[in-house]
Amino acid sequence: MRININDLRYKVIATLEKNFTNEESVRIADYLLWAEMSGIKTQGLIKMTGTEPLQDIKPKHEIKVERDTKLSQLINAGAYPAPLVSQQATDVVIGKAKEHGFAIVSVHNTFSSNGAQAYYAERIAKADLIGIVMARSPGSTAPFDSIDPLFGTNPVGFSFPTNSEPLVFDMATSAMTFYGLILAKSKNEKIPENMAIDKDGNPTIDPAEAMSGAIMPFDRGYKGSGMGMVVELLAGPLASSAYCDYQTQDKEWGSTFIAIDPELLVDIDKFKANASDLVSIIKKSRKKANVETIRLPGERAALAYKTSLESGFVEVEYSVMKQLGYSD
Amino acid sequence: MRININDLRYKVIATLEKNFTNEESVRIADYLLWAEMSGIKTQGLIKMTGTEPLQDIKPKHEIKVERDTKLSQLINAGAYPAPLVSQQATDVVIGKAKEHGFAIVSVHNTFSSNGAQAYYAERIAKADLIGIVMARSPGSTAPFDSIDPLFGTNPVGFSFPTNSEPLVFDMATSAMTFYGLILAKSKNEKIPENMAIDKDGNPTIDPAEAMSGAIMPFDRGYKGSGMGMVVELLAGPLASSAYCDYQTQDKEWGSTFIAIDPELLVDIDKFKANASDLVSIIKKSRKKANVETIRLPGERAALAYKTSLESGFVEVEYSVMKQLGYSD
Repeated sequence: MRININDLRYKVIATLEKNFTNEESVRIADYLLWAEMSGIKTQGLIKMTGTEPLQDIKPKHEIKVERDTKLSQLINAGAYPAPLVSQQATDVVIGKAKEHGFAIVSVHNTFSSNGAQAYYAERIAKADLIGIVMARSPGSTAPFDSIDPLFGTNPVGFSFPTNSEPLVFDMATSAMTFYGLILAKSKNEKIPENMAIDKDGNPTIDPAEAMSGAIMPFDRGYKGSGMGMVVELLAGPLASSAYCDYQTQDKEWGSTFIAIDPELLVDIDKFKANASDLVSIIKKSRKKANVETIRLPGERAALAYKTSLESGFVEVEYSVMKQLGYSD
Repeated sequence: MRININDLRYKVIATLEKNFTNEESVRIADYLLWAEMSGIKTQGLIKMTGTEPLQDIKPKHEIKVERDTKLSQLINAGAYPAPLVSQQATDVVIGKAKEHGFAIVSVHNTFSSNGAQAYYAERIAKADLIGIVMARSPGSTAPFDSIDPLFGTNPVGFSFPTNSEPLVFDMATSAMTFYGLILAKSKNEKIPENMAIDKDGNPTIDPAEAMSGAIMPFDRGYKGSGMGMVVELLAGPLASSAYCDYQTQDKEWGSTFIAIDPELLVDIDKFKANASDLVSIIKKSRKKANVETIRLPGERAALAYKTSLESGFVEVEYSVMKQLGYSD
């Protein structure tokens, strides 16, 4: 359904306010609408549907700062929704890095996933900082040569300021997202070949079998597995979160936000000009046969967001709108 | 040839001293012997052979510090050998991070490549810091959907302190190394399929065609390409090095060294214990069919180094020994 963005925002905030303050609801809505408008539907308003919808989350305690230094902060989220606490972490990492040149902030004990790393990474780059953002999720992905789901799908995002929009690259370190499995199962569909294994380590295209088995690393090899391990360490043990664990799905989310001021090494104007030039060189390079346009990471999502913003409308699933109290 | 390590070190230092001070020669030899003993032969003593052997490098000027802050340093290497200046950068990044919790050091204008990122990353982790080390090399690798060799092979290494040896993971973001092409060409061998394209973008297994064409990203996809781009930015523009350039092979090397003190977020003892536990869980997990042992990144190299050290001997190519003045 094509929905007016302002109406949608109003409905989302009103639904969230059943359980959260207005300020909290506005922040959560900001993230959800960004994902929805960017076309990242699997990380958007869908979070307000299902058996554990975001608006029904009951936090366990206040958000607590457990360690705080000039360059860092560790936040215990008290089971508040991850997109809310991750925005707080993003604010803190930007503030500290603008003052000192670098900062790292980790969050543990959120309720569920913070969604698309690109959202937080982009905000860091908009403050003229280089961003590295990552999240550890409950074990679903097998390390190279293993058949146990020890790593999360472990997304990581990088962002760079340029002379125009930030350059943002994010990816899951797994071959597909866990939500992709849930979706395929709910639609009674198969998943593509070479994505996952069943609980005994045999290749499978059945999403339910994959959910009790494991997803493979994104390159099906040791490099992708190594990247998954790096995220597991930086958003697991470093963030006081779980690691290599798939027993306790509800308390295993951890994330880490890093911001680096390019001025530590080079004038920001020069860095931004060169980053823009790099983008332009890649865009103008010779294309592979049958490729129409070379797209940079994040370009498609940024275009979708801009188009939606300019039109004032966004496409939303009917099931999501029902959840927001829409009646036809 | 099986060579006594002490004899070998003596010969390497003596050869380097033709052109470098004793202190410089010792440091360069440290790196080269480490790579050789770790079985990373393509990044070891082979650098002392060929048309531009390391011992014949004529630096252009003194190594200069061009920017220095509490958390950072930018070093102009004056065309000194990269393994020498990269060790200096590693010392600086460790020193600053031990004092302030974080540091970033970049190097530009080295002569050629600094070799295996694992060497520098491991030293950072041995100081109880998390290390991220990367290098930008002359363009040889095509971004996703492009057929131009815009990115270097762009290796990146990560390291983590544990209760025993550091956990070190390094990889090229390209499907194969540029040296792999040189080696195949010199031996008149083909390269494996699906590694590279020729100058018109057609798949090739001819190393010479690949050298005038491009290597593919390690996963042949947009994620590996994105990782290559991240390294290109962090060790290119951020390090005042070239980027997306393959015209000036001799002045395009850049590298960036990052060190993060886990104490910014968590007690170091707890981090190391959990990192060790993570390693142990992975090692003990269920293996894929036909896999004998699950090896962690860096494990094979660490074992080779240890075995060589304990035996007091290392295997070295005859051509390398000839270059070091060995006569039979």
